[in-house]
Amino acid sequence: MNRGTRKFLTLLTDFGARDAYVGAIRGVILSIAPEAVLVDLAHEIPPGNVRAGAFALLSAAPFFPRGSVHLAVVDPGVGGPRRPLALECDRGWLVGPDNGLLLPAAGRLGRRGAYALENRALQLARPGETFHGRDLFAPAAAHLLRGLDPRELGPRVEPAAPPPWPEPTPTRRGLLGEVIAVDRFGNLITNLPVAAAEGRGVAVRGRRLGGVRSTYAEVPRGGLLPVRGSTGFVEVAVREGSAARRLGAREGTRVALEPLRSS
Amino acid sequence: MNRGTRKFLTLLTDFGARDAYVGAIRGVILSIAPEAVLVDLAHEIPPGNVRAGAFALLSAAPFFPRGSVHLAVVDPGVGGPRRPLALECDRGWLVGPDNGLLLPAAGRLGRRGAYALENRALQLARPGETFHGRDLFAPAAAHLLRGLDPRELGPRVEPAAPPPWPEPTPTRRGLLGEVIAVDRFGNLITNLPVAAAEGRGVAVRGRRLGGVRSTYAEVPRGGLLPVRGSTGFVEVAVREGSAARRLGAREGTRVALEPLRSS
Amino acid sequence: MNRGTRKFLTLLTDFGARDAYVGAIRGVILSIAPEAVLVDLAHEIPPGNVRAGAFALLSAAPFFPRGSVHLAVVDPGVGGPRRPLALECDRGWLVGPDNGLLLPAAGRLGRRGAYALENRALQLARPGETFHGRDLFAPAAAHLLRGLDPRELGPRVEPAAPPPWPEPTPTRRGLLGEVIAVDRFGNLITNLPVAAAEGRGVAVRGRRLGGVRSTYAEVPRGGLLPVRGSTGFVEVAVREGSAARRLGAREGTRVALEPLRSS
Repeated sequence: MNRGTRKFLTLLTDFGARDAYVGAIRGVILSIAPEAVLVDLAHEIPPGNVRAGAFALLSAAPFFPRGSVHLAVVDPGVGGPRRPLALECDRGWLVGPDNGLLLPAAGRLGRRGAYALENRALQLARPGETFHGRDLFAPAAAHLLRGLDPRELGPRVEPAAPPPWPEPTPTRRGLLGEVIAVDRFGNLITNLPVAAAEGRGVAVRGRRLGGVRSTYAEVPRGGLLPVRGSTGFVEVAVREGSAARRLGAREGTRVALEPLRSS
Repeated sequence: MNRGTRKFLTLLTDFGARDAYVGAIRGVILSIAPEAVLVDLAHEIPPGNVRAGAFALLSAAPFFPRGSVHLAVVDPGVGGPRRPLALECDRGWLVGPDNGLLLPAAGRLGRRGAYALENRALQLARPGETFHGRDLFAPAAAHLLRGLDPRELGPRVEPAAPPPWPEPTPTRRGLLGEVIAVDRFGNLITNLPVAAAEGRGVAVRGRRLGGVRSTYAEVPRGGLLPVRGSTGFVEVAVREGSAARRLGAREGTRVALEPLRSS
Repeated sequence: MNRGTRKFLTLLTDFGARDAYVGAIRGVILSIAPEAVLVDLAHEIPPGNVRAGAFALLSAAPFFPRGSVHLAVVDPGVGGPRRPLALECDRGWLVGPDNGLLLPAAGRLGRRGAYALENRALQLARPGETFHGRDLFAPAAAHLLRGLDPRELGPRVEPAAPPPWPEPTPTRRGLLGEVIAVDRFGNLITNLPVAAAEGRGVAVRGRRLGGVRSTYAEVPRGGLLPVRGSTGFVEVAVREGSAARRLGAREGTRVALEPLRSS
């Protein structure tokens, strides 16, 4: 097999593995594009949590080969007025609902344009509008993988939904951000870029945690620390423990960058 | 790669991803049929819940290309008298225990005949009879994918177990069915066909919910609604919430189709 | 496609499917080795539980074709002094941290030598040392799959960490072992080899359970039994129930082999 001849289609959903909804999506894709190499990003995104899904997508999609198609479905508004979209990017395609889910990843993949998925001839016949993952998004992703001209999908549009989390805001003493996701280990991922944290201290709910570290091992077991996160954001962690539990923090909890105090 | 040369083998189990039981099954299959393209349907079926497994299999297997082999293991009676089976269908193969798990999907795939897996030469040597998924079912599925004559597996038989859920029963005023599965989102999937619900109202535990809708977005957030489910059955849902919790309903809860009252 | 031309790379982690950490690992591998056939062993290993991870790896890796590369990351000491390793075996490669995780599987795969992953040119640039799965282990596994000379990875070393569970100890009356893992179903997996159990009885916390059986079906539903486990170890199970709950047992609970009493 020659390098680069395989075509990757990644999947990210909140459908879980208790039901076979993702299984049905896989079947639809492979019936249209049997050559597709399916790759899972994550399927246990907390149900309906667009922000957590957007962060997960951002943390994985940029590592895939150029030309990959990324299908992402965290879609509490399915069947409502939010548009189904395909985003063309320099490094591949993102397919999913217009609810902000795709935007952070699109930024890193080099977003070019967007198409609304309106061509019903490319969609599955269906009894109702409850499963766009299977009936709209999966066929669109499979056809894009096969090289479909995206204008076949529907008209060019502009995404309407705002990004799923705000930019941090400058303060008199530094930068004010927030927790955008809590991972399985209880690590708090913030919207504060690692670059902005150099030479500064991190504070959560009034608690000063010192400067960002490179690794958990710089503090004793059970120690609380800000760390340079693997996705380029400041994270707050407890070594071999849960920072979310320790700090009573969750999505939306404010996290500040402040001057480091000399100690 | 030519369209249609890839051979798909799907997996559905209640083994979860906390243990590597599914991993061992994958290894056995790939050692026999290294060309197999493995595709997951679902692995977090509630342990031993044949009914939930049967619904999940039904909801995904029909979307796969003709000729796919579907291996399904939800098998609380492993090692007991229930027979291990391979079901030949117009559209592919189903492999798993004779406990009703395979029957709803077999109906949709066009069931033709059944074979008992009795040929020990095609099975793994093993210390005990606790893991037929790895030792019996996986080899059978892999050999079928490679084109084995099914008569090599064992004798033709008739499945002994009944279907995992009953047909709905006609009533004086409509049709009486029940919840056959509760999905991750708390949606109640019933055994009532969507076609039978047209022009009728849905009632759960004496509560009248009105006619079936096409999408959650037809009611306000938090609203309760019957909806045309994506598998062709009536479902009861709460928009962006859990109908199971709202109604205190679960598998077996009765759901009726009745005349719609003029309002 | 010719038999045996596909190259398998298995993945076992405690990263779960709620975040896309495994997704990022998959992207890194496929960017280096697009021909890799990725196969999941398990991803919901209890966070940081090296022992459970080692048992899961042992239970699946030996079933894969010769030449497979097995990447395993359960790594509570990431970024600390524990070394990242690649273990060369007769039947393939194991890649992961030097914390005991790889050793039981390496024993079954025929361990030959070990290399420390020190060559930063083969690793990802990164903001910190929190995600060696993506930044160190995934590239090493992908390069090994492509046939890299392992001496390119770093120097030959000896693994420093001890095995994740002890050997059972001989007693006056038999053999004393312990629970090394509890699976999803509440089965207790011990470090007692099935071969040593023949003709003996099993006792847990002073409770005599009789001789090992071949299958759950030998006792009534709800019955407690020792059984010849599918990985070659004695297991303690409740038929269609949880032995862990019934016995209040967990990892480390002692399990003894004793003379069978005539009854």
